[in-house]
Amino acid sequence: MHNKYIYSNIIGTFVFNEHFKPMNSIMFKNTNEYAQKEKYEKDFSKKYSHLKKPEGKELEKILEYFKKPEYFKEFRTKNIVITRQLIKKSVKDELLIIQAINNISDIDKAINTLTKRLREWYELYNPEFSHSIDKQELFVELIMKKNKQELLQEINEKNSMGADFSKEDLEPIMNLAKKIQGLLELRFDQENYLEKIMKKVCPNMLAITGITTGAKLLSQAGSIKKMVEFPASTIQLLGAEKALFRHLTSKAKSPKYGFLHEHPLIMKNKQKLHGKIARALADKISIAIKVDYFKGKFIGNELINKLEKKWK
Amino acid sequence: MHNKYIYSNIIGTFVFNEHFKPMNSIMFKNTNEYAQKEKYEKDFSKKYSHLKKPEGKELEKILEYFKKPEYFKEFRTKNIVITRQLIKKSVKDELLIIQAINNISDIDKAINTLTKRLREWYELYNPEFSHSIDKQELFVELIMKKNKQELLQEINEKNSMGADFSKEDLEPIMNLAKKIQGLLELRFDQENYLEKIMKKVCPNMLAITGITTGAKLLSQAGSIKKMVEFPASTIQLLGAEKALFRHLTSKAKSPKYGFLHEHPLIMKNKQKLHGKIARALADKISIAIKVDYFKGKFIGNELINKLEKKWK
Repeated sequence: MHNKYIYSNIIGTFVFNEHFKPMNSIMFKNTNEYAQKEKYEKDFSKKYSHLKKPEGKELEKILEYFKKPEYFKEFRTKNIVITRQLIKKSVKDELLIIQAINNISDIDKAINTLTKRLREWYELYNPEFSHSIDKQELFVELIMKKNKQELLQEINEKNSMGADFSKEDLEPIMNLAKKIQGLLELRFDQENYLEKIMKKVCPNMLAITGITTGAKLLSQAGSIKKMVEFPASTIQLLGAEKALFRHLTSKAKSPKYGFLHEHPLIMKNKQKLHGKIARALADKISIAIKVDYFKGKFIGNELINKLEKKWK
Repeated sequence: MHNKYIYSNIIGTFVFNEHFKPMNSIMFKNTNEYAQKEKYEKDFSKKYSHLKKPEGKELEKILEYFKKPEYFKEFRTKNIVITRQLIKKSVKDELLIIQAINNISDIDKAINTLTKRLREWYELYNPEFSHSIDKQELFVELIMKKNKQELLQEINEKNSMGADFSKEDLEPIMNLAKKIQGLLELRFDQENYLEKIMKKVCPNMLAITGITTGAKLLSQAGSIKKMVEFPASTIQLLGAEKALFRHLTSKAKSPKYGFLHEHPLIMKNKQKLHGKIARALADKISIAIKVDYFKGKFIGNELINKLEKKWK
C-alpha cells in the first residue's frame, strides 16, 4: 500500500496520492473553516488509510501543485482577510493605555499654554489677584466664580491697577477660562479611564507605580512584552534616555532614574537615597510586570509594602 | 512791587513771596483736584497781582522748600495713586487685540496637538475612515455624529481593520473629540470678538489685511503707535524676522513678506508677483494704520479696491 498525503492551507484541505496528484479536497469558504482545519483533516483520515503529513521533499512536490495561476487570486484574497483579522486582534489594551497617557500629556500641554495666556490677558484687568495665586486650577476656578471686587477683597486689596473692562471685553476671557476648565475635567476623566484599564491589564505594576508613572513607563517601553524583556536597570532609566545618552557620549554623570523620579517614595526621601530607592523600585516593577504579563495573581501590594516599610 | 511766584505740584498749589517763603497754599485732597490745578491757580491770580511761574534759579529755590521731610510721605502716596491711574489707563484696546490674536494661535496649537492624538487613538478603532478625511474640523464633527458602521458606509467600505471597542474604551475618545469641538467653537468666538475690536480700533487696516493677518502684524509691531512709525518696508517684513536675520548673517535670500503671505491677494496670484504685491499691500497698510491712529475717516475699502483691480 502506498502512502497518501494530507495537506491544508488557507484555501482548503487536500489529499494527494503517492504521485502527488490530488485525489480529493475540501475548499474553505471563509476563514472560520480554515480555523477548523483539524476537523476536516480528521474527516479525511476516516475515509483514507495511510494518510500522512508531507515532509521535506514530499512537501516540496505538493507545494509545486499550488503554484498554478488559478490559485493565485484565492491565495491573495484569503491572505488579505486573515491579515486584516490579525491586525484587528493586534490592538490590545496596552495600546489604549499608551494612547491615554500620551493624551494626558497632550492635554497638560494644552492646559498650560492656554492658562498662561489666560493669566496674561486677565492681568490687564486684575493683576493683583492673578499674582496672589499660584495654582493654575484654583485660579481658573476662582475667576469664574467671583467678580473682580470679590476677588480683590479676598486678598485685602481695595483698588486694582487693572483696567476696567466692559462686559464685552471680559467675555472672551471668561470663555477661555470655561474651556480650560473643560480640559481640566477631561484630564480627570482620562486619568480615571487609565486607572480602569491598568487595573485590568497590569494591576501589579499599577500598585507599585501609580497611574501616570506606570503608564509613562509602559508607553516608553512600547508594550508589556518588551517591558518584561527589559532588565530592571533599563526600567530604572526609562524616561532618562536623553541624560543617559549625554552620559555615554560626554562626561556627564549617569542618570539614576527616569520617570521614577515622580514616585512618592522617591519624592519624600532624601536626595542621597534616591538612587537606591529607584533601583529597588525598578526591581519590584520588573517582578510585577512579569506577573502581569503571565496573568499571575495579585502581589502588587506585597511588593510595594516591603519598600514602604524600609523607606518610610 | 516785588514778584510773587505760583507753583503747583501733586500735593497742592503754592504762592511764594520774593524771598521764596510760602504765603498761601491750597492742598489737594485727591488726584481729581490735581487735575484741575489750573482752576486753583486762577483763583490765586485773582487774589495776588504780579504772580509769575518760577523759572531757572527761582524754580530751584522753590523746589528746595519741598525737600522738607514732612512732605515726603504725601509725595509718595500721591505719586503711587497717580501711577496706578496711569497704569490703569495704559491698557488700550490694542492690547486686547494682541492678547486675542495670541490666544487664537495658542488655541490653534492646542487643537492641532489634541486632534493628532485623537486621530492616532481613533485609528485603532476605525483606521479606514480616519485616512479618508483630511480636514480636522470635519473629522471631529463626523466621528461624533455617526457610528463606525455609518462612517464606513460613507466611504464604501464594508469591514474595518480596526479593533472592536467596548463602549467603555470608546468613551474617552469621544470625550476628547467633544472638548476639541469646544475649542473649535472658542476659536470661532474669539475671532468674532477680535473682528469687533479691530473694527473699533483699526477699521482701515482691517479692511486691507483681514482679521488674523492684521492682528498678527499689530501683535508683532507691539502697538499701533509703533506701527505708525514703521516704514512700509518694515511692515512688509513683519513676521519674517527669522528669515531676515538669516539673510543678514548668512548668504540666504532676503525674505519678501512675513505675515502678509497669508493675504488672499498674494495667495491667489503667481509666485512671481508675490514680492510686488506684498510691497503694494505694505504701502497701503502703512497709510491705513496712520489714518486709524489719527482717527481719520474710513478709506480702507478704497485702498484695497485699487490693489484688487490691479491684481485680480
